[in-house]
Amino acid sequence: MRLLEERIKEDGQVRPGNILKVDSFLNHQLDVSLLEQLGKEFFERFKDKGITRILTIEASGIALACLAAQYFKVPVVFAKKAKSKNLDGELYTSTVHSFTYGKDFTVTLSKKFLTKDDTVLLIDDFLAVGKAMRGLIDICGQAEANIAGIGIAIEKGFQSGGKELREMGFDVYSLAIIDEMDDEGNISFKEQ
Amino acid sequence: MRLLEERIKEDGQVRPGNILKVDSFLNHQLDVSLLEQLGKEFFERFKDKGITRILTIEASGIALACLAAQYFKVPVVFAKKAKSKNLDGELYTSTVHSFTYGKDFTVTLSKKFLTKDDTVLLIDDFLAVGKAMRGLIDICGQAEANIAGIGIAIEKGFQSGGKELREMGFDVYSLAIIDEMDDEGNISFKEQ
Repeated sequence: MRLLEERIKEDGQVRPGNILKVDSFLNHQLDVSLLEQLGKEFFERFKDKGITRILTIEASGIALACLAAQYFKVPVVFAKKAKSKNLDGELYTSTVHSFTYGKDFTVTLSKKFLTKDDTVLLIDDFLAVGKAMRGLIDICGQAEANIAGIGIAIEKGFQSGGKELREMGFDVYSLAIIDEMDDEGNISFKEQ
Repeated sequence: MRLLEERIKEDGQVRPGNILKVDSFLNHQLDVSLLEQLGKEFFERFKDKGITRILTIEASGIALACLAAQYFKVPVVFAKKAKSKNLDGELYTSTVHSFTYGKDFTVTLSKKFLTKDDTVLLIDDFLAVGKAMRGLIDICGQAEANIAGIGIAIEKGFQSGGKELREMGFDVYSLAIIDEMDDEGNISFKEQ
């Protein structure tokens, strides 16, 4: 998606260790009008799939999921990364390794918000190795929910997550796929 | 706000320890069309205040903040609860005690996203004792940003947070203020 690629080139910053900082518009400060347009793009791609719920993971996925949900007119459910006192009842759980935070954590979702009658669109802001997304897929498996597709804002195409998910048969739609980036700040995108 | 009060009566669940569960529409599953209407209500109240940024805290504040921001046409910034490897540069930090999670945590915000030139609307889903909100106020103080108001979805009026913040001079607008709730599930609201 040209709009997102241009924004990444303009405002993204490459840091050592293959880190791309897009915190001025995607995951710390949020450019809501941009996110609306990304949400609409997911809708155009997945609108005929019978989506009943959008599933994401806290925290940065929530904004993008909500702005997409406005078009789909379905609820968002977000998996939680810490066990809250307020989460009771039956839970789906999955263990995820976060490279960003350098540790494993458990993600949880109340069973009442995802069932075998759901057709789910999974949404997240980033896809790199794909650990968080596999946690969400695991949860959908536990719920026996149907996964209609995966919507990602930025995929690091030089890491394995996207390739592996596509090989598993998932319909992964990444709005920008980074082909290469270097410490001088050059970023190139995969043609889609 | 009648709409929110009715939804709380319909779908909220009272649990021992003064816990109100509204996870079916506000903080686990998100009813995005409801949140849109809450966001619009904040806009009607604060639209003439010259808001330049909406500040919230992860995770459940993000959805409501984004849907309000669509009306204000300003960016959202959210304070983070854990130190991520991707958060570098100068940070504002504040320590907050969470009753929900039963521990202290540090909230952080990149200095580049909040300055003395900002007029801020603080938004969160819940206000009880007000610890999280005081963390955000502390951060605004460090930034020397002007706080135009505080928008809350559900205030627990029988706890001290709202009263204290109003006594400090803040314009706190809570869309539903719970006056009393009991273990039989009865909930009454403060007339506004």
